[in-house]
Amino acid sequence: MIEVNEYFDGKVKSLPVKSDKGRKTVGVMEPGEYEFDTQEKETVTVVTGEFSVYFAEYDEWEEFGPGSSFEIPANSKFKVKIAQDTAYLCEYGD
Amino acid sequence: MIEVNEYFDGKVKSLPVKSDKGRKTVGVMEPGEYEFDTQEKETVTVVTGEFSVYFAEYDEWEEFGPGSSFEIPANSKFKVKIAQDTAYLCEYGD
Repeated sequence: MIEVNEYFDGKVKSLPVKSDKGRKTVGVMEPGEYEFDTQEKETVTVVTGEFSVYFAEYDEWEEFGPGSSFEIPANSKFKVKIAQDTAYLCEYGD
Repeated sequence: MIEVNEYFDGKVKSLPVKSDKGRKTVGVMEPGEYEFDTQEKETVTVVTGEFSVYFAEYDEWEEFGPGSSFEIPANSKFKVKIAQDTAYLCEYGD
């Protein structure tokens, strides 16, 4: 039985993917702007759609399309803007 | 609010991804063997994990790993075997 994770009133949902190689999830975000906190390092790969990601370090928004990835360090915050439904793979840890 | 699709007692779940370019879902399958019916043509791409897919036409099982895709015609059945949690993108129609 797969447990569904739900955030932002159900506008972001994800499904866990159990793996020998660390924890992973796949999820979908509906259009909106969201801020997330990380505990571990997260590597996010766009499956379909597009992310705009705000990197506080560079004070810059960057776009990521299908197949591209970005990394978010542990214990940090990141903001994303979504203009169309976007599916992603998130891999936790190193 | 994203509606979760659930099959086989929750061992397969998927999330819709609304798109101008036709209907898509991302989902996860837990280990097991499953048979699906298609109404439309389906193009399935492995996001992480592995599918064994049975093609009745060739009486053969074939393996598909991350990044690889297979197509299932409309109005047909297909069987998959999953040995580890596997995430996929499914695109409906042509």
